[in-house]
Amino acid sequence: MDRIASLRALLRSLSADALYLTHPAQVRWACGFTGSHGVLILREETAHFVTDGRYRTQAAEEVAGAAVCVMKPSQRAAAECAAATGCLAGARKAVYASDRLVVSSLETLQKHFPDVEWVGKPNLLAPLMACKSPAEQERIRAAQALTSEVFDFLKEWIRPGRTEKEIAARITGEHLRRGAERMAFDPVVASGPRSALPHAQPSDRAVRSGDVLLLDFGCFLDGYASDMTRTVAVGAPDPLVPEAYDLVLAAQTHALRHARAGMTGREVDALARDAIREGGYGEAFAHSLGHGVGLEIHEWPRLSRHADEILPEECVVTIEPGVYLPGRFGVRIEDVVCLGKDGVRNLTDAPKGWTVL
Amino acid sequence: MDRIASLRALLRSLSADALYLTHPAQVRWACGFTGSHGVLILREETAHFVTDGRYRTQAAEEVAGAAVCVMKPSQRAAAECAAATGCLAGARKAVYASDRLVVSSLETLQKHFPDVEWVGKPNLLAPLMACKSPAEQERIRAAQALTSEVFDFLKEWIRPGRTEKEIAARITGEHLRRGAERMAFDPVVASGPRSALPHAQPSDRAVRSGDVLLLDFGCFLDGYASDMTRTVAVGAPDPLVPEAYDLVLAAQTHALRHARAGMTGREVDALARDAIREGGYGEAFAHSLGHGVGLEIHEWPRLSRHADEILPEECVVTIEPGVYLPGRFGVRIEDVVCLGKDGVRNLTDAPKGWTVL
Repeated sequence: MDRIASLRALLRSLSADALYLTHPAQVRWACGFTGSHGVLILREETAHFVTDGRYRTQAAEEVAGAAVCVMKPSQRAAAECAAATGCLAGARKAVYASDRLVVSSLETLQKHFPDVEWVGKPNLLAPLMACKSPAEQERIRAAQALTSEVFDFLKEWIRPGRTEKEIAARITGEHLRRGAERMAFDPVVASGPRSALPHAQPSDRAVRSGDVLLLDFGCFLDGYASDMTRTVAVGAPDPLVPEAYDLVLAAQTHALRHARAGMTGREVDALARDAIREGGYGEAFAHSLGHGVGLEIHEWPRLSRHADEILPEECVVTIEPGVYLPGRFGVRIEDVVCLGKDGVRNLTDAPKGWTVL
Repeated sequence: MDRIASLRALLRSLSADALYLTHPAQVRWACGFTGSHGVLILREETAHFVTDGRYRTQAAEEVAGAAVCVMKPSQRAAAECAAATGCLAGARKAVYASDRLVVSSLETLQKHFPDVEWVGKPNLLAPLMACKSPAEQERIRAAQALTSEVFDFLKEWIRPGRTEKEIAARITGEHLRRGAERMAFDPVVASGPRSALPHAQPSDRAVRSGDVLLLDFGCFLDGYASDMTRTVAVGAPDPLVPEAYDLVLAAQTHALRHARAGMTGREVDALARDAIREGGYGEAFAHSLGHGVGLEIHEWPRLSRHADEILPEECVVTIEPGVYLPGRFGVRIEDVVCLGKDGVRNLTDAPKGWTVL
């Protein structure tokens, strides 16, 4: 079933007769437009893509399955253009992604279409977008391979004296040089005791011999994200570090071996969490195990203690257990994997044996 | 008046007794927190900043003027934490930025605080945030100086054969190497006929002798954005190019000479637009003249044909007229400037005389 058809099926399941999509990743998934401003309006019989004059050429080239309408400069909102072209005429009940639309945009819609019942749904497209096609999986694998190449480069290049900021800048530069569109998030480069802060921003701290170095980075390639964390030592560290590393790796390996589609996010999270707790570091794994990855760096589903939904077949998620000892060091290991009904296919090929640079 | 005090004055002017801010730039402006997840809840007598465990240390270090509350892992939304700590207790009317809050977040608030009247305002903080302090102006000037340095580098480094993507990657790399936190947007590198597309993404096209090359890029430094466009030729181009360049530069110079706080966005836009129309290229200037710059790359106010609001004193905006001839070439010149009551102070020092590399 093509994507426009599956969205129409979604509409019918919600007893609605119009779909209003604005979020760039959702719009791209549905009709192929890669720009940052455009609205897809889907009815049972019609599909319209509304954008502004800057994207006229791009929309004509990219959009599939929908007629392109370009707003006039005097039209301040896509809703005005939709009203003018009549593409919401006669609509009774329109659904939108309530976690992706700001309140003022909803107010504009309600003003221009007072007779439509506007119904917001959080995670409206999440289950559809979570199931990745073989082509999507290959794109994620390619993005992940590019990120692995950069990690290979870093292992040769990093040495004591380089600062976290310098390393982060090089991570970005090496990704772009190899063809990445952009970074998926600001690289995390956390050295020494700063590795115990799960969301540290790169600082001017220079890496020293004996440091733990936690590196978490990813890029967009061909629209899809990579996401990888590796933790290494720069010279021989505190003997507790390889011990904690082995535990985190064992917990990740256990999760990779036993996770599969059909389990809940909570169950997969527990695979790693229980292993870490049994190793005596339960309190030190303070975040969730993973999240979906695709056209966005953080997608549904989540793998966490609070995620009750069933993980769908062919969803792509991170598996990233960690252990953080405040003031001392942190360890995290993260791969991106695809969950099939029989188990995990790892889309990440970077090595993860204990490494001292 | 400090910022918390000016927000309390804003509350009183709206007859409200609570303010709920979630947008990172607004939160940073109000209380100094530089992370990506946190909520500021302001009452007449109290101020609370709610974040999750990842930001405990950072919030304690950065937040000024508000008590820090860290959500428990079981609390899924800041609203739950706010309900538990009672920091919205007794509130009657709470205002939020309706162009910055998604509908599902509003629904969560309404569920947890059913007795509060939730009132959304678009551009709630825009007029406050638009007036830049001397320290903010210096930060923008510093970001703009870093971007100018990169432009100096590019003039030496660019030559025929380099692709748009290669140039874009180098722009990012040179910014980061010089200490930028990140890019403010993906660099625009548009060569030859692609320079006529105002929002072209860098392609694999290699620059050729005789090309126009349009470069639009900016970074974040110390939280504040830079934004600059320069158009050059790589080898002698079509003689129409320097003619169009002179017209765009004359239009920008005219706007820089006559713009000042107290005019409307429409009036400043017209300074450049009229000059381009009088030069015979009226149709070819298809976008607006500029936008505010600060903690975000696109802020209020806008300078456009549809902007009726008065430009406040000490607002910082781009002035970026352009001319685009589809299939042939485009020219745009952009500076970031501060509007005082007596005129413009240009925060951009990169030269902009006609340049053939």
